Amino acid sequence: MKRIGVLTSGGDAPGMNAAIRAVVRKANYHDVEVYGIYHGYEGFIQGKMELLDLGSVGGIIQRGGTKLFSSRCPKFMEEKYRLQGIEKMKEAGIDGLIVIGGDGSYRGAYELTKLGFKCIGVPATIDNDIPGTDFTIGFDTALNTVVNAIDKIRDTATSHENTFIIEVMGRDAGDLALWSGLAAGAESVIIPEEPFDLDDIIARLKRGEARKKKHSIIIVAEGVMPASQLADMIKERTGIDIRITVLGHIQRGGSPTAFDRVLASRLGAYAVELLLEGKTCRAVGIKNQEVYDYDLQEIFTTKHQADISLYTLSKELSI
Amino acid sequence: MKRIGVLTSGGDAPGMNAAIRAVVRKANYHDVEVYGIYHGYEGFIQGKMELLDLGSVGGIIQRGGTKLFSSRCPKFMEEKYRLQGIEKMKEAGIDGLIVIGGDGSYRGAYELTKLGFKCIGVPATIDNDIPGTDFTIGFDTALNTVVNAIDKIRDTATSHENTFIIEVMGRDAGDLALWSGLAAGAESVIIPEEPFDLDDIIARLKRGEARKKKHSIIIVAEGVMPASQLADMIKERTGIDIRITVLGHIQRGGSPTAFDRVLASRLGAYAVELLLEGKTCRAVGIKNQEVYDYDLQEIFTTKHQADISLYTLSKELSI
Amino acid sequence: MKRIGVLTSGGDAPGMNAAIRAVVRKANYHDVEVYGIYHGYEGFIQGKMELLDLGSVGGIIQRGGTKLFSSRCPKFMEEKYRLQGIEKMKEAGIDGLIVIGGDGSYRGAYELTKLGFKCIGVPATIDNDIPGTDFTIGFDTALNTVVNAIDKIRDTATSHENTFIIEVMGRDAGDLALWSGLAAGAESVIIPEEPFDLDDIIARLKRGEARKKKHSIIIVAEGVMPASQLADMIKERTGIDIRITVLGHIQRGGSPTAFDRVLASRLGAYAVELLLEGKTCRAVGIKNQEVYDYDLQEIFTTKHQADISLYTLSKELSI
Amino acid sequence: MKRIGVLTSGGDAPGMNAAIRAVVRKANYHDVEVYGIYHGYEGFIQGKMELLDLGSVGGIIQRGGTKLFSSRCPKFMEEKYRLQGIEKMKEAGIDGLIVIGGDGSYRGAYELTKLGFKCIGVPATIDNDIPGTDFTIGFDTALNTVVNAIDKIRDTATSHENTFIIEVMGRDAGDLALWSGLAAGAESVIIPEEPFDLDDIIARLKRGEARKKKHSIIIVAEGVMPASQLADMIKERTGIDIRITVLGHIQRGGSPTAFDRVLASRLGAYAVELLLEGKTCRAVGIKNQEVYDYDLQEIFTTKHQADISLYTLSKELSI
Repeated sequence: MKRIGVLTSGGDAPGMNAAIRAVVRKANYHDVEVYGIYHGYEGFIQGKMELLDLGSVGGIIQRGGTKLFSSRCPKFMEEKYRLQGIEKMKEAGIDGLIVIGGDGSYRGAYELTKLGFKCIGVPATIDNDIPGTDFTIGFDTALNTVVNAIDKIRDTATSHENTFIIEVMGRDAGDLALWSGLAAGAESVIIPEEPFDLDDIIARLKRGEARKKKHSIIIVAEGVMPASQLADMIKERTGIDIRITVLGHIQRGGSPTAFDRVLASRLGAYAVELLLEGKTCRAVGIKNQEVYDYDLQEIFTTKHQADISLYTLSKELSI
Repeated sequence: MKRIGVLTSGGDAPGMNAAIRAVVRKANYHDVEVYGIYHGYEGFIQGKMELLDLGSVGGIIQRGGTKLFSSRCPKFMEEKYRLQGIEKMKEAGIDGLIVIGGDGSYRGAYELTKLGFKCIGVPATIDNDIPGTDFTIGFDTALNTVVNAIDKIRDTATSHENTFIIEVMGRDAGDLALWSGLAAGAESVIIPEEPFDLDDIIARLKRGEARKKKHSIIIVAEGVMPASQLADMIKERTGIDIRITVLGHIQRGGSPTAFDRVLASRLGAYAVELLLEGKTCRAVGIKNQEVYDYDLQEIFTTKHQADISLYTLSKELSI
Repeated sequence: MKRIGVLTSGGDAPGMNAAIRAVVRKANYHDVEVYGIYHGYEGFIQGKMELLDLGSVGGIIQRGGTKLFSSRCPKFMEEKYRLQGIEKMKEAGIDGLIVIGGDGSYRGAYELTKLGFKCIGVPATIDNDIPGTDFTIGFDTALNTVVNAIDKIRDTATSHENTFIIEVMGRDAGDLALWSGLAAGAESVIIPEEPFDLDDIIARLKRGEARKKKHSIIIVAEGVMPASQLADMIKERTGIDIRITVLGHIQRGGSPTAFDRVLASRLGAYAVELLLEGKTCRAVGIKNQEVYDYDLQEIFTTKHQADISLYTLSKELSI
Repeated sequence: MKRIGVLTSGGDAPGMNAAIRAVVRKANYHDVEVYGIYHGYEGFIQGKMELLDLGSVGGIIQRGGTKLFSSRCPKFMEEKYRLQGIEKMKEAGIDGLIVIGGDGSYRGAYELTKLGFKCIGVPATIDNDIPGTDFTIGFDTALNTVVNAIDKIRDTATSHENTFIIEVMGRDAGDLALWSGLAAGAESVIIPEEPFDLDDIIARLKRGEARKKKHSIIIVAEGVMPASQLADMIKERTGIDIRITVLGHIQRGGSPTAFDRVLASRLGAYAVELLLEGKTCRAVGIKNQEVYDYDLQEIFTTKHQADISLYTLSKELSI
């Protein structure tokens, strides 16, 4: 294999650029050329790509977003377009592809491998919801963004002795809510993995009030319900005036943390190694501080498990 | 005057603690004691206060929020409560008050002065909407919070080539929108001070599209309309899919910037000087880099003017 | 056990406050009282301590440093003082102690356990040099501080096309240099664990120059040699003008990252569990994302191993 | 004038990119082309430049450093090289130049105007030492970098109850020391503009000690003396163990603050206006919140004055 491709797909995540850089440099280290494919699978179909040399990935390790852009590509559902893309790659002498993204991106990669095109998946999403890896690229950065935002809101909450509900990203996975709740010392954390218990939330608010706590912060994962809905429910039951903040898209951006840069560097480089060994249909991940790989299909049959011990701990510490 | 009081009132703003610290230290420097009154005018009425010594304001210059807390106090509209508060102050030997806050707080101070109690107003609000001062305490910090948030959103906007509308605080004053729009390089900035021009906004979006601009960012002050409403208007006219983020309460918190700490230190100290000179019913402000004071009533008869030259410049630079 | 003590000792690390908070709240959750002992072992000897209730650890999870202070205590080497301290604890009804700190702090704890006083060690040091735990509290924060500082320096390095040597903390452990080097994309990383190879450093500089690289950044752990000495060595061999920055004490401070707050919360709470189970002379740590405990003495007989795979990867990616 | 040049020169400062962007966009707004000249006057002599269009300055407003690079150019002292550069410009149809930098850069510009080539100076240096403008581009960012670094160091200083000396940039101008000292609540600030008074410094340390202050922070401008020298002097007199940190090059980098981006946008755009009006040998500046211009030569005959009222205030507040 003398030439490979790399693309980013799905929602962007901080550290994608660090992963691209690692792919290019690790491949170059082994005298393999890397083509950057623009706009995800859209660019794959159209052969929209460019040779990435060492200089072209200089100064990007600290940048948020993805220099290769990302986009949805419904056409990729149709086999004819996938075949067209593979044709474009073969014309350019590209024999393998590294896909950086979330589970949707992995599905696309899997379909390509069924057509005989070699693919490796690199997990990058702020949701941390890819099974088979302890962490995904971007999670740590998003987590710190959320925690810093809550720190700011707490300044105001404390000064006015208010109750705040903060809605964070996470449709099916509560990781961001769970970790940020523990890290920010939230009174209640509401995640999709655990039953919703309004009585407990209200009991905690009242307990805080009783001991003259200056503020209460409740974190809710968007997958459970919107912050506004929760605020209404609590207000109806208690009369407490509640303020809400939906953190929204600030959670996706920003310069990656050191942890995400290191993770992205390791996983990107390891994906190159696998391709060079002739492997395909593998996903890379980190497990117990070590990079490893597993069958890409596993992410369709297993489900990411949030660390529920953090949920229990969070409850105990926010008595 | 051997003993004065200080309180914070209205919405909290980063730098209020730095102002409290300056009041205490400057007064102590002149051998005058300072009592911190808790919860704004509520504490004034009830005489809820505490002696603040040098140590009690140590390590607060960098903290967001206000260590004296803030709260609404509808009762303060009634003269009998104001008289009750003045009584409490006199009992404690407190002859003057420094009020740190926005225009609502100034009104309260003005009412007190009419009853013969000496007050000086220190402008602290993230909205920068106090007439008579170039800047209010907290504006610079909030501005940087907004700009950093937009920087993060732009990472995502660029990666996905999206259009974003970001709603920032500011009911009557567009300063936060105006300055952040210029600092973040927004395509359009919508403020209460200038006519709303949907055609221009759309023309800019199309122009950006035509030159293959990767993203567009539109900033709207909450006082004009909610981001969601603007998104609907644009979508109806253009079909463009638009994402919105309401920055919300993160704008109020956070460690104050250097500028806000210096401003708060100068204005807090200057307010003490005025009280010690026997002045009352004065507001302090910064004008052309210098602290000065003016009649507190001016803020009821004049209106803060945003620097519209920034609006024009913003339009020219976002061609 | 109805009452325990907690102290911080040695160099401070971000997250110590989060650990103190977790100790107090977890103990309170089990109806156990916690006394905060001031100034490390100094306060232990003198019985300088205070009951910490829920409120007293409110709003500290995000603060750098340690609210219990830390100090050196040479007297603690003498058994009579240790016995005196134990006496003070017994008088106050305190039956166990949680020591938050580095290896020096662990030695003190070990000596106390030999005298029959129950102790649990919680690893907190920015150096990450405690054997038996994947990470110590404070490392992730210090790492991000270093990486952010290097990001700033790179702005200047790029603009002027300069070579910079940056000296980071780490006497015996190269973790901070290693991780920051990978995360910041440094050209060379020099750590105590690997042989010093001036030829390689110079070869990398020349290779960068040959491909018109805009800047070079070399990271050196303080334990290997001072930045100034390395600069002289390189200058003598190459004539290249090199700038140096010694990051110094900024590496110890700052608000802890989300990772450090979560780690501190987990380890602090787990230490309480151990004490309540009647355990003593145990150290807590995180291994493969899970908290666990091991014999405190292990840290005297084993040595922390930096992850050398990061060193190799760093070299490959900085070709 | 249909085509102009822009270059950055001297030490880089955050906001230079924002100024370049403003020059390009304001000129484009008036249908004037802008060439970016690389490596300061070196590129001017050699005609090393490139057309900058709207897209080429996209996404740079938030970047530290300068995309046009900067370098020293001793050759520029010789007239023949300046003439050669002017020749190169004329060949390219470039009739005027905007120079972004400090006083050294202004001297170069002045020499060019004497040869009949039109130049406008835009003040960018973290030192804030250009006479005729209240603020230079980069000062506010550097100031916040310094203050954030001191905030981190204070966490450690407080935890260990230590005294720290922090050396900040500023050879002849004490602005950075002065403002950061006030903003960080330093006990003593030592600047070139005021007499060095060791007795006062020591008296303050002792006073702090007497009232059990947890830490002391002394800020010294590099132009007065190195931190190490001051530490020795204090130690000799008092025996106090003092720690030092030299902030160094982190002060130059980083993403510009909102204030610096707005300032850079205003000054860059105004410089274009002047050139288009046919003006030459002018410097732009901000005075009382408004942009204005003055004779470039003034900066050689007048001297920047730091605001000494801040020095007095700093002393009063750090009693």
